[in-house]
Amino acid sequence: MKQDFPWEWSRIGIDMGGTNTQLGLVDNWGVIHSRASLPTAGTLEEYVVAVARAVKQLCEDSRAEGIDVTGIGIGAPAANSRTGCIEGATDIPWRGNIPLKELLEKATGLPVDVANDANCAAAGEHAYGTARHSNNFICITLGTGVGAGIFCDGHLLMGRNGFAGELGHVIIDPRGEMCGCGRRGCLQTFASSKGVANIARRLLVDTSQYSLLRKKDPAEIDAKAVFGCAEMRDAIAVETYRRMGEALGKACAMFAAVTDPDMIVFFGGVTRASRHFLPYVKEAFRQNALFLNRDRVEFRLSGLPDSDAAILGASAVALGNTAAEMAEENKAEENKKD
Amino acid sequence: MKQDFPWEWSRIGIDMGGTNTQLGLVDNWGVIHSRASLPTAGTLEEYVVAVARAVKQLCEDSRAEGIDVTGIGIGAPAANSRTGCIEGATDIPWRGNIPLKELLEKATGLPVDVANDANCAAAGEHAYGTARHSNNFICITLGTGVGAGIFCDGHLLMGRNGFAGELGHVIIDPRGEMCGCGRRGCLQTFASSKGVANIARRLLVDTSQYSLLRKKDPAEIDAKAVFGCAEMRDAIAVETYRRMGEALGKACAMFAAVTDPDMIVFFGGVTRASRHFLPYVKEAFRQNALFLNRDRVEFRLSGLPDSDAAILGASAVALGNTAAEMAEENKAEENKKD
Repeated sequence: MKQDFPWEWSRIGIDMGGTNTQLGLVDNWGVIHSRASLPTAGTLEEYVVAVARAVKQLCEDSRAEGIDVTGIGIGAPAANSRTGCIEGATDIPWRGNIPLKELLEKATGLPVDVANDANCAAAGEHAYGTARHSNNFICITLGTGVGAGIFCDGHLLMGRNGFAGELGHVIIDPRGEMCGCGRRGCLQTFASSKGVANIARRLLVDTSQYSLLRKKDPAEIDAKAVFGCAEMRDAIAVETYRRMGEALGKACAMFAAVTDPDMIVFFGGVTRASRHFLPYVKEAFRQNALFLNRDRVEFRLSGLPDSDAAILGASAVALGNTAAEMAEENKAEENKKD
Repeated sequence: MKQDFPWEWSRIGIDMGGTNTQLGLVDNWGVIHSRASLPTAGTLEEYVVAVARAVKQLCEDSRAEGIDVTGIGIGAPAANSRTGCIEGATDIPWRGNIPLKELLEKATGLPVDVANDANCAAAGEHAYGTARHSNNFICITLGTGVGAGIFCDGHLLMGRNGFAGELGHVIIDPRGEMCGCGRRGCLQTFASSKGVANIARRLLVDTSQYSLLRKKDPAEIDAKAVFGCAEMRDAIAVETYRRMGEALGKACAMFAAVTDPDMIVFFGGVTRASRHFLPYVKEAFRQNALFLNRDRVEFRLSGLPDSDAAILGASAVALGNTAAEMAEENKAEENKKD
């Protein structure tokens, strides 16, 4: 039905992965009109040239349909929207600070916005997904790590250094498992795929309950195995998701008090097991939320198609930020006066 | 020095208290040019007429100086900026929902914005106070309760129902003291004036240490008494502020991960004791913050003069919100299309 409407703009979404980079020409309805793909390899200069060439091709496709491309959004690991740089990512071929926004704006002549995966996911849900009708929601990505993008009053929060929404590193249990950030009991140690595997391993040690998971070498237990066992109603796997859901629900109660959202959207690989943890998230939220938030937050799953979520999210990244940028400019001018 | 500059606009700030309402004509430098005062009494209709009359007088004063008043900001208990209503306040003479914004806009013909005390404080710090050069800060009010106003990317966060920034009700210790909201261990049970008194009372029971506070009836111990004793280096009073500061610092570490501020400003009566708790806030923050935030957040005290803070804050209330409103309007139009 949506295709009946004329599309008003199109943007190029770029998903920069460790080995491959995917590009897509996306219209304002979230339809991908054409695609391109190239390896994330070579020198940085070669890579930028290759991306610019692919962008040019997509722009020509777009013009053939009578619409101009209005900008480029890039989702990249450790990308900072505030600076436009990739800051010390470890899973791409180049080290240090990479001024991706600057390099690609020069190479393509188009406005470029960069964002990390979690902010891309939130922007995608806001533009085309589950949160299409919401201006106040939190999108929490549950994958290898836990991240988040927060929309409040219609705009994606950035913060002073571009680090707003680091909800995976809010401490839930100060006596919990060690987190990669050097502290204990961060939300990430409960709700990431690694966290799920860790909870299961801990339960296998702490209890003597029968479990299919005992047949595996503990080092080989991963979120996929726990999910498989939960599907077969294995007691340890079920308890794992109960604990994970409870921690996540408590954390959501805390987040709701900060930005007063009407929706929390879960995104990412771990959500495949949502039927095992979502009821516990809701229950823990109800028990821990402030009365002002208690019955006012909906819990939903991502509405973007798995395979295209990254391109769609990247393409949406700049759309919500105009207001924030205007505010920054106003303040800068005010400060000049003082 | 500031008075050398021409003032560009003036707004009327109204501080609506339980017994008195104070009005002030404030320019963009935070100078109060003229004042008025009236009792918060009579029927609601009478009160609105009286406020409108006082506003008219201030507007005439303003015109005499050659400047028009551009709007009115009101700080009121339980005020919701999103709806423009006072929602069930218990310390004013009228019950239920009071559509203050609507009533006063009709009576004065000027745009009116309402906000609760914490949001007024944050707006005041942003416009004229400590956070004048910051677009990303959290203003935490430490008074009878604990509230907060959060500026992120230059705008004061409202949230879906206007309840963003309820940081006093983030749970710090699930086994802590009972809070007025019906849950245990909220930040408010540590960092409000009541919280400080409670911590001291608990310490007097749990330890047998000598303390000046033992000379008082436990029911009569209040934050003022604890402050007085801390000034005299009373061990129990000092320990009280250590615990309070530690809880507050932990909470700030959590908040910093959500909105990435460069500054946290403390406001309100309890800050008189800042030299007793601020070092512990900083220490607990350093120990609990994510590495991305650790050395990037400054802790400061309010920069507004005590006696005028409420009027100044109220006068600043609408200034930061234009961006948010624009975003809301854009979204509403987009939704019409779907």
